[in-house]
Amino acid sequence: MASDTADPTTGRHRIVVVGAGFGGLEAVHRLAGAPVAITLVDRRNHHLFQPLLYQVATASLATSEIAWPTRHVLARRDDVTTLLATVTGIDTAARRVLLDDGATLPYDTLILATGARHAYFGHDEWEPFAPGLKTLEDATTIRRRILLAFERAERETDPRRQAALLTFVIVGAGPTGVELAGTIAELARDTLPSDFRRIDTRKARVVLVEAGPRVLAGYAEDLSAYAQRSLEGLGVEVELGRPVSACSADGVVYGDRTLEAKTILWAAGVRASPAAEWLGVPADRAGRLIVEPDLAVPGHPEIFAVGDTVAIAGPEGKPVPGIAPAAKQEGHYVAGVIRARLAGAAPPGPFHYRHAGSLAQIGKKLAVIDFGRIKLRGALAWWIWGIAHIYFLIGVRTRLSVALNWLWIHVRNQRSARLITQGRDDED
Amino acid sequence: MASDTADPTTGRHRIVVVGAGFGGLEAVHRLAGAPVAITLVDRRNHHLFQPLLYQVATASLATSEIAWPTRHVLARRDDVTTLLATVTGIDTAARRVLLDDGATLPYDTLILATGARHAYFGHDEWEPFAPGLKTLEDATTIRRRILLAFERAERETDPRRQAALLTFVIVGAGPTGVELAGTIAELARDTLPSDFRRIDTRKARVVLVEAGPRVLAGYAEDLSAYAQRSLEGLGVEVELGRPVSACSADGVVYGDRTLEAKTILWAAGVRASPAAEWLGVPADRAGRLIVEPDLAVPGHPEIFAVGDTVAIAGPEGKPVPGIAPAAKQEGHYVAGVIRARLAGAAPPGPFHYRHAGSLAQIGKKLAVIDFGRIKLRGALAWWIWGIAHIYFLIGVRTRLSVALNWLWIHVRNQRSARLITQGRDDED
Repeated sequence: MASDTADPTTGRHRIVVVGAGFGGLEAVHRLAGAPVAITLVDRRNHHLFQPLLYQVATASLATSEIAWPTRHVLARRDDVTTLLATVTGIDTAARRVLLDDGATLPYDTLILATGARHAYFGHDEWEPFAPGLKTLEDATTIRRRILLAFERAERETDPRRQAALLTFVIVGAGPTGVELAGTIAELARDTLPSDFRRIDTRKARVVLVEAGPRVLAGYAEDLSAYAQRSLEGLGVEVELGRPVSACSADGVVYGDRTLEAKTILWAAGVRASPAAEWLGVPADRAGRLIVEPDLAVPGHPEIFAVGDTVAIAGPEGKPVPGIAPAAKQEGHYVAGVIRARLAGAAPPGPFHYRHAGSLAQIGKKLAVIDFGRIKLRGALAWWIWGIAHIYFLIGVRTRLSVALNWLWIHVRNQRSARLITQGRDDED
Repeated sequence: MASDTADPTTGRHRIVVVGAGFGGLEAVHRLAGAPVAITLVDRRNHHLFQPLLYQVATASLATSEIAWPTRHVLARRDDVTTLLATVTGIDTAARRVLLDDGATLPYDTLILATGARHAYFGHDEWEPFAPGLKTLEDATTIRRRILLAFERAERETDPRRQAALLTFVIVGAGPTGVELAGTIAELARDTLPSDFRRIDTRKARVVLVEAGPRVLAGYAEDLSAYAQRSLEGLGVEVELGRPVSACSADGVVYGDRTLEAKTILWAAGVRASPAAEWLGVPADRAGRLIVEPDLAVPGHPEIFAVGDTVAIAGPEGKPVPGIAPAAKQEGHYVAGVIRARLAGAAPPGPFHYRHAGSLAQIGKKLAVIDFGRIKLRGALAWWIWGIAHIYFLIGVRTRLSVALNWLWIHVRNQRSARLITQGRDDED
């Protein structure tokens, strides 16, 4: 190795990974045993299993069941140092990552796995009224708003205000929107009714608003239709082809309709991390880095980017979706490129995304799975969905704990985490 | 019944219970089947199992394992309406409880079970630097501070600041202080070491500071001595006879010593709820209501008070301690007085507190139990402590889940809830 691609004291090639999500963590896992010294930086202390985040937001799971301290996940990896820090920029000339406290991290190779946040299509002013779902705090904020709405409705004497408190609008009918809508409907129908005296929680309205022509647009059309029928069977009102034009403390305007609603949840758009700004390189409209076929940043072969912060075309020219398996495949691939370089071997061919399938849960024994050729729906799909998600959790304790909670939801309609705790928003 | 002691429409005697802690909830439970209409008001939506709150603060348990939605606990009680609301005062002349939104709740009988907060002996300015432990938010705030201190120490290059980050001071050596100190010591010694690269978490200092002459002052002297030896065996520095005279962002002053410490936890004093102020009646120095032998408020036979907001003498003239069994006995007793009145029967004799015993956990297989004549210590006491606490949790799911977490702590030294989430304090 050239001397400028290794630590002058240890002689080891220094890799800095920014972001401990699915992509960053997979890259670290796949670099095990390589002659490298890795520093993994994240501004959170935990790896988050985002596919089940909506279950925290709907009081079904506890935060500690879908999040694990990153440094504990990597406890046995002596070659990895984990740092809780916020990255503020990158000095590509000096090959250093800049941290919030003024410290810098030198790198020989950099992997950016910095993800995405939800976005409001240029209407950031909607955020206070329509929180999105990307972090644990987002989930407990949404949980708090949903549960508080029922509590306030129980105290409210004015029928119109009571109706607005019992109206829940979810904007965006992708997997997160569908899962939120279905679970809130089940919460209102099955979990809560016997706990309230003055209101009938079964009369709560759950409205799923989508600008496009169908729910789960990424799935086969018959699965979209099944998902819509299933949601409607749970009492969800599905409003298609109606883009949202206003969100406020009073409600939402979509298409030509105005709906008074005290709870609006945002599941409609994402915006990538500022990685492209840090580097001063081109990005697409959502802020995603445009990368080379080997996931390197143009002009910077020593910098790779993976996961939701990257725009890259997949099979049939369609963009690689922003889902966990895609981020993991990218992290795996980049680790291979780096290993080949360090070994002086020929680089692997360009990155190819293999779509294993799409899964979404709608409700109890209601799920859809699109494996491409094979399409499943209903109870069988739901069992596969549940087993797959428990399989991908980290650790035996978490798996047992989540299985126990799901058993209770399904047998007794009880949700374990119906706690209102004070959050970032001081709405009351 | 006289017409002024019943709802004019339903004819039922109206009871308002303020506070869904151990005392208030027990009174509601013991009034089941009585000819009454109960409204239970609490400013939180959950009943909290405070004896295990320190385990949330030390990342051992999730919030949802020690808290349950109050209205769900009472789902089958059609005679009980649960309201999430903050009480702002009491109009004793009109017999109405005043709520934060301007609404009022009429009562024929009122039970005040409003508890206590931690207190700083006239030094409220210490609170930002030395949080106490009474609510779920307190627990996640303390958890965040403890875990952040280790994270910052890993990043810190200045040895003196690093030492201050790795110094944890607990003020007050009652059961909560002892349990916090022992658990933080085990966290640093057993759970964290393999996860950090730059610091040795086993070198963290845990200092338990107490103004009085011994730890666990309410226990027999030989159990206090055993608890102190056990703590010292875990590496805790026990500083007795040293009242704290200053707390700041830099550290703490106790006796003639100054200690640089970035984490100070307060387990030293309590102050009762403002119930005495609401009523304009006498209170003791800690703000506790002075009540009649039947727990009625002087001059107000229709108002009872139970739990930590009450000062009453127990056996041998010693004050009834501020623990869950005492609050439950008081709630049970008051329900009996009300039932006798409604039935036109003779009132029961004055309240008598029966002390069943004191239990405190110090660490793995280290606990003390003072049953009066029988005193236990060590592994046997620890097993009894664990079984008793699991028994008193609510619901099978919670019991299984807590048992699972404890198993993991004891077999694998893993603590399930090592999550840093953003809290009320914006210290960074």
